[in-house]
Amino acid sequence: MNTYNKYKNHLKKVKDIEATMAVLHWDQEIYMPSKGEEQRGNQLATLAGISHDLLTDENYIQLIENLSADDSLSDIEKRNVQESFKDVERKTKYTKAFVEQQSLLVSKALGAWQKAKQQNNFKVFQPLLNEIIESKREECELLGYDEHPYDALLGLYEPQLKTSFLVNLFSDVRNKLVPFVEKIRLATQNDESVMYKSYDEDKQWQLSLYLLKKMGYDFDKGRQDISSHPFTTSFGSSDVRVTTRINKNDLAEVIWSSIHEGGHALYEQGLLDANYGLPSGDATSLAIHESQSRLWENNVGRSLPYWQANYKKVQELFPEQTNNVSCEDFYKAMNIVKPSFIRTSADELTYHFHVLIRFEVEKAIFDKSIHVQDIPEYWNHKYKTYLGIDVPSDSQGVLQDIHWAHGSFGYFPTYSLGSFYAAQFFKVAQKQIPDLTKKISEGNHVDLLNWLRKNIHIHGRLLSAEEICIQLTGEKLNFNYFMDYAKEKYKNLYNIEV
Amino acid sequence: MNTYNKYKNHLKKVKDIEATMAVLHWDQEIYMPSKGEEQRGNQLATLAGISHDLLTDENYIQLIENLSADDSLSDIEKRNVQESFKDVERKTKYTKAFVEQQSLLVSKALGAWQKAKQQNNFKVFQPLLNEIIESKREECELLGYDEHPYDALLGLYEPQLKTSFLVNLFSDVRNKLVPFVEKIRLATQNDESVMYKSYDEDKQWQLSLYLLKKMGYDFDKGRQDISSHPFTTSFGSSDVRVTTRINKNDLAEVIWSSIHEGGHALYEQGLLDANYGLPSGDATSLAIHESQSRLWENNVGRSLPYWQANYKKVQELFPEQTNNVSCEDFYKAMNIVKPSFIRTSADELTYHFHVLIRFEVEKAIFDKSIHVQDIPEYWNHKYKTYLGIDVPSDSQGVLQDIHWAHGSFGYFPTYSLGSFYAAQFFKVAQKQIPDLTKKISEGNHVDLLNWLRKNIHIHGRLLSAEEICIQLTGEKLNFNYFMDYAKEKYKNLYNIEV
Repeated sequence: MNTYNKYKNHLKKVKDIEATMAVLHWDQEIYMPSKGEEQRGNQLATLAGISHDLLTDENYIQLIENLSADDSLSDIEKRNVQESFKDVERKTKYTKAFVEQQSLLVSKALGAWQKAKQQNNFKVFQPLLNEIIESKREECELLGYDEHPYDALLGLYEPQLKTSFLVNLFSDVRNKLVPFVEKIRLATQNDESVMYKSYDEDKQWQLSLYLLKKMGYDFDKGRQDISSHPFTTSFGSSDVRVTTRINKNDLAEVIWSSIHEGGHALYEQGLLDANYGLPSGDATSLAIHESQSRLWENNVGRSLPYWQANYKKVQELFPEQTNNVSCEDFYKAMNIVKPSFIRTSADELTYHFHVLIRFEVEKAIFDKSIHVQDIPEYWNHKYKTYLGIDVPSDSQGVLQDIHWAHGSFGYFPTYSLGSFYAAQFFKVAQKQIPDLTKKISEGNHVDLLNWLRKNIHIHGRLLSAEEICIQLTGEKLNFNYFMDYAKEKYKNLYNIEV
Repeated sequence: MNTYNKYKNHLKKVKDIEATMAVLHWDQEIYMPSKGEEQRGNQLATLAGISHDLLTDENYIQLIENLSADDSLSDIEKRNVQESFKDVERKTKYTKAFVEQQSLLVSKALGAWQKAKQQNNFKVFQPLLNEIIESKREECELLGYDEHPYDALLGLYEPQLKTSFLVNLFSDVRNKLVPFVEKIRLATQNDESVMYKSYDEDKQWQLSLYLLKKMGYDFDKGRQDISSHPFTTSFGSSDVRVTTRINKNDLAEVIWSSIHEGGHALYEQGLLDANYGLPSGDATSLAIHESQSRLWENNVGRSLPYWQANYKKVQELFPEQTNNVSCEDFYKAMNIVKPSFIRTSADELTYHFHVLIRFEVEKAIFDKSIHVQDIPEYWNHKYKTYLGIDVPSDSQGVLQDIHWAHGSFGYFPTYSLGSFYAAQFFKVAQKQIPDLTKKISEGNHVDLLNWLRKNIHIHGRLLSAEEICIQLTGEKLNFNYFMDYAKEKYKNLYNIEV
């Protein structure tokens, strides 16, 4: 077997372990019985250790080094090796003991967070959150950074992302988006009551399957389940699963979670089976991942043309609730902009204030400018400042998201980056795909999906986020695309001057 | 860390991998999308290879050898080490390549078997069955045997079990049970129609959860799902899951599968968490496992006292269907003895004819006295001989069970052994537990479960099947207990002389 094939085979084994861990996590969040937690935590820690061993194995590192100096490789092969080299550089900074300990800690923290959220009490989560933050601080030091410790964590999800870049980006959000939302809040408000009628759960489930299928999600290579926090997970591009949540009195939850997770899943299903385990078979960054979910959710799913195609399904499933509600009314109702407590159910504009706040809180944690016990107060203060609302409880405040319990610090900013990329990409898609709006209004997403497949999905990590953006749009990420999208859409929805 | 603790920690890691494989298998049979098969197969093969590496690791073997010579260990520690030594002896007979290949083959065979069963065509399964049999023949040679190659496979499930022992045992079945069933068939038949009315699936599901809970199954340490072939799986004693199946027109399926799998699950939940990974934390043999499921299913669940406690739940859920059906009628209806094609829905007596046939077919395969392509004919001929029925199709014949697709040859005989052990154990339970029958008739299973926990479950592999049997009953497995149980019960049910 030649060296490159040995390298490929080794990475397939690593991916087998990672996919296995993903199965265990999926089960843990959806089906695992309560008392299975401790043994599951140990199992995940063992697998994390094995994956670490495989990626830091001396023979494997030697292989990578040999391949890095091998001029006979094709460009694609070279790029794969280059990316793997970066992975090795990062992985070898960790000890196996650290990896196993953090994995165990996360399993425990997950249970503590769930309990704290149920009991609506930050104090229940605080000791484990503290341990996790300590572990993440240690991780920053292990990984190293030039400017800010938080950079080390950002880079885990978005290669090259810097705190300083986000400080600038979010000051754009503050300076441009905040006043724009204020303008909307002063305008005459639309009627959103149709979203909050009583909707049969089984029929909501049917609607969600329908929407996923219409997007192009392949149910032979995936499935949907119910979980409290919707997510997408991949066990390889032939088994990419989504979850959704259903709220009897809020139709929006199932719609946005299904379309959003569907967008993530289409990216994962669009990676090539043949590249399983290789960097070319892996998503390039979380911001690009989020650009896919947000493009489907916001640019497609929250548009009038999309509902011109799909509203009849809603009417068919819920004739009573939609009686006397036109497609345009429905479109308006789902695009109400207003401050709220929960990020995942926020509108597409104030959404970014939630991320902005999370960014500022996380930055302060890794600055060490706040203590763990002060996080809720700090958090609540920011909600008052940016959104003008008083957070009523920890569950609706700092405990709302699972991410910190997973140890995912530095993850949230990719949510905003993704939306901004999505606006920029979709602008180009509208230029490059003939009659895209018309096709969407007819429920035809084939060309759009193929365009995303060709330009983004199939490359995996062979193109970085920035490379994709420049190749597609001729420039780096530019917040103005998002502002233009927002102005164009909401000036009509709210009859305002922009 | 002392040597014994090192040994324990190593085995915990091995168990983590095995539990992980069990999760992947569980998911594969219940939830995995169709196209996930190939990648899942690779993932399982990788894990099988890792488990093999860990169990044949030189340092581990050295550890075991040192511990085997260590006189300072307690008796329990010594027995654990002794059992682990046997495991190592067996595992080191395999190469890693063989283990991975067989794992891959099994994943492929599973799909082929499913397709063959759907298409009702043995030929679709035949090529892969042939490969599996070749692989198992190779395995017999790797493992070694004294008398018969099939002994090597029997020993994988039931340590020390020999083909010659089974030849004798099944000649008892033929000589004693076959004529007894003939006598029943000549008697006046009872009315079974109540079992085959139309039963709402959701209510069947409720019944099944109710029965499991009443047995003592702990839902905080497990869950039930639906699968086409009911099974129990353990990811550690804190996460032991069962599946059931529901047939709208046959209430018996859900009842027997739930009680049966519940019996298996109680054994696994009764192993001690503290022994996770050690032989003392592992079931001692499949026949003992089956003795637990059969004791609950047959000796408890198919008895009149059991339904004196539980029939009111059936009446509550299904008032129309049970109108004018007394508890005794219900008891009679569920105890109809008659020849049938499908092992898993057979009555508790003719059940053993199915196992007898499977034993004779498997023995012939490893004798090489039949070719793979001739199995269906051979199978059908035996059904004619022992059960007097003409098998109408492969799906209802040789393709009915998943086991061969799993590579599980030598597994079926443990089903009969389990029933026979169950009869023997239950006889003693009735003597040792005051008022057991009365307690069962009141829905109180606490003393029975504690008796099983104390005498069987908690020992894990510290007692062999034979040791348990002798300790509990004063003698080795004795088929006469089963015959006595059968005569005692069915003479009343069918008004026959015995």
